[in-house]
Amino acid sequence: MSLVTNEDARAAREILGQLGPRGPVRTPLLPAPDADRNAPLLLKPESLQPTGAFKIRGALHATAVLDERTRARGIVAYSSGNHARAVAHAGKVFGIPATVVVPHTAPAAKVAAARALGAEIVPVEVSERESRAGEIAERRGARLIPPFDDATVVAGQATVGLEIAEDIDALGLSEVTVLVPVSGGGLISGVAAGLAGCRARVRLVGVEPELAADTRESFYAGERRHWSVAARTSTRADGLTAQPSEFTFAHIRELVDDIRTVSEDEIGEAVGFLAESCRLVAEPSGAVTTAAHRHRTWESGTTPTVAVVSGGNIDRAALLSSLAD
Amino acid sequence: MSLVTNEDARAAREILGQLGPRGPVRTPLLPAPDADRNAPLLLKPESLQPTGAFKIRGALHATAVLDERTRARGIVAYSSGNHARAVAHAGKVFGIPATVVVPHTAPAAKVAAARALGAEIVPVEVSERESRAGEIAERRGARLIPPFDDATVVAGQATVGLEIAEDIDALGLSEVTVLVPVSGGGLISGVAAGLAGCRARVRLVGVEPELAADTRESFYAGERRHWSVAARTSTRADGLTAQPSEFTFAHIRELVDDIRTVSEDEIGEAVGFLAESCRLVAEPSGAVTTAAHRHRTWESGTTPTVAVVSGGNIDRAALLSSLAD
Repeated sequence: MSLVTNEDARAAREILGQLGPRGPVRTPLLPAPDADRNAPLLLKPESLQPTGAFKIRGALHATAVLDERTRARGIVAYSSGNHARAVAHAGKVFGIPATVVVPHTAPAAKVAAARALGAEIVPVEVSERESRAGEIAERRGARLIPPFDDATVVAGQATVGLEIAEDIDALGLSEVTVLVPVSGGGLISGVAAGLAGCRARVRLVGVEPELAADTRESFYAGERRHWSVAARTSTRADGLTAQPSEFTFAHIRELVDDIRTVSEDEIGEAVGFLAESCRLVAEPSGAVTTAAHRHRTWESGTTPTVAVVSGGNIDRAALLSSLAD
Repeated sequence: MSLVTNEDARAAREILGQLGPRGPVRTPLLPAPDADRNAPLLLKPESLQPTGAFKIRGALHATAVLDERTRARGIVAYSSGNHARAVAHAGKVFGIPATVVVPHTAPAAKVAAARALGAEIVPVEVSERESRAGEIAERRGARLIPPFDDATVVAGQATVGLEIAEDIDALGLSEVTVLVPVSGGGLISGVAAGLAGCRARVRLVGVEPELAADTRESFYAGERRHWSVAARTSTRADGLTAQPSEFTFAHIRELVDDIRTVSEDEIGEAVGFLAESCRLVAEPSGAVTTAAHRHRTWESGTTPTVAVVSGGNIDRAALLSSLAD
C-alpha cells in the first residue's frame, strides 16, 4: 500500500494556496502560557479554521483536484460532524452542490452548520450512512469524499504537518514531540507525511480518550483491533470515535512513535485551561493533546511539545460546563 | 509634534523579529464565520499573544531599543492590566528586573499574572501610580515604559498595522475598513502608521464603549476633552478607560477617519459570538470592534472589515456570564 508522502503534502499545499482567501487559514504556533510543566507547549490551533476544524484542508483539497466536469456534478459526504461542515464549505467555495448524509442522531447544531453553508442534508439511519452516501454519489456521478480513508483527503491534512515543520525549523528547535488526536487516523497520517521534511528530530505521538483507545490497542498489537460502536462512543470527545482504516493504519504503524490516552476529566480540564489561559475555544476532541501534555509524564523530559488543537466546535452548554468545573 | 511613521513601524518589526521565538506572535487574519452582515469580517486576534494582548509588542520593542547598560537597570510600568503583564513579560524575556506599580484596586488575577512572570509588584493608591512609578525609575536609573504616550511603544504596536496591511494586500482586497479599540490611543496610532504602506484603500475607524466615549467627543471637537475617571470607568471594557495623550491624539486627529461607539449589551453579545462562532476568547475591550461590525450600519456597505481583537484576558466568571447571556 503506498503511503502519502512529503511530496504529496507539498503538492497539496500548492493547490490549496491557489484558492487564496477561499483556502484554509495558515495557522500559527502559539506558545501556551502557564503550561504546568518544564517543557514548553506550542499549540497548533486548527480550531481557528473558518469551519472550526482541520477537516477543511482535506475536503478542499479532495475537491480541488477533481477535473471540472466531475466537480460540477457535486460532492457527497457521510458525517455528523466537522467533516460534514468542511464538505459543505467546499461546495460553497467551488459553487457546486454538496450533499451530506447524516444519521438521525446527529447533533442538531452541527447539521445546522452544514445546512447554513448551503449543503443538502439527507437524514438516514446510522447503519445506512455509508451505503446511502455511496448510492447518491453513484446516481449523480458525484464525488464521495470519505472522512479519512482517501489519499487526497490525507494529503490535504498533511499541510498541517508542513506548517508545523516550517515553524519548528524557524524557531530553531532541534528536537520536538508532536501530539495529534487520533480517530480515523487521517490527521495523524497527514501530519506524519508533512513532518517528514523537518530538520528537527520529531517524535510523533497520537492521543486518544481512554474510552476510545482502539488505535492504541491496535498499535501495540501490530494489527487493527475492532471496538464496538457502543464502546467507542461513550467519550465526551465526540470527534474521536471512528477507527483507522487499513490505509491510515498503515501510516500509523509505519510513522507514529506511540499512542497515549487521556481520561474524561483530563479532557474537560484541558478545555477549561485552553479557554482561560490560552484564549482558545477547543472542542473536547481538540483538547486531548493539551490534556496529554498537562497530565502525563512524557519520556521526552524538557523537549518542546506541539499539541495540535484539531477543532473548536463545542456548543455553548458544553463550553459552559467545562468552564464551570 | 512628529508622528510615528511607516518607516518606524518597519524598523520596530525588524527589531522584534530578532527576538525569534521570544518575540510577539505573527497573528493571522481569520475570516469570521456566520458574520451577520453582507460585508465579510476578518479578525486580527491579538488575544493569542503569549500575554493575551497586543501590549506585548510595544513593551518588548521599548525594551529592545534600550542600550544594554540602561536595560540592565530594569524597566518599570504603572498599569493594572495588560500593559503590566506585557512589561513583566519583557523583563523575563530580557532577563532584567521589571517593576509594576499597581493601584490597590487592581484585579487580583491581572496582578497575579504579572507576579507569575517574575515582576516586582508595588501596590499604591490610584492617584499615586504615575508619580511612584516615576520615582522608582529615577532612583534606579531604570526605564519607565508608559502604556501609550511613547514613540517606541507606539512603534511596537504599529507592527499590528504592518501585518494587517500585508495580509490585506495578499488577499487582493482593494478597499477595507479597519476597526481598532481606542483607550489611550497607542494601538490605533500604531495601526495607522503600520497601514500607511498598504496598497488597499483603508478607512480607519476607532471604537469605544458608549460609556467611555471621550475620544469620540474629542475627535469631533478637534481637541482633547476630559472625562472624569468615574465617568470613564463604568464600562465593562476595563481596558478602555484611559484617555489619549497629546501625542496619540495628534495621530488620531491626523490619521483616523472616524470614531464609533458600542453599548454594553453589544459588547457582551460580541464576547459570546467570538467564543461560540469564532472559537476566540476575547475580553470585553477586545470585543468592541466585533460588536461594532455586528450592531452598527457602516457607510462602507459591503466593504470587507478587519476587527482588531486587542486582547483576551477575561476571567472565567466574566466569560461564563457572557456565554450564559
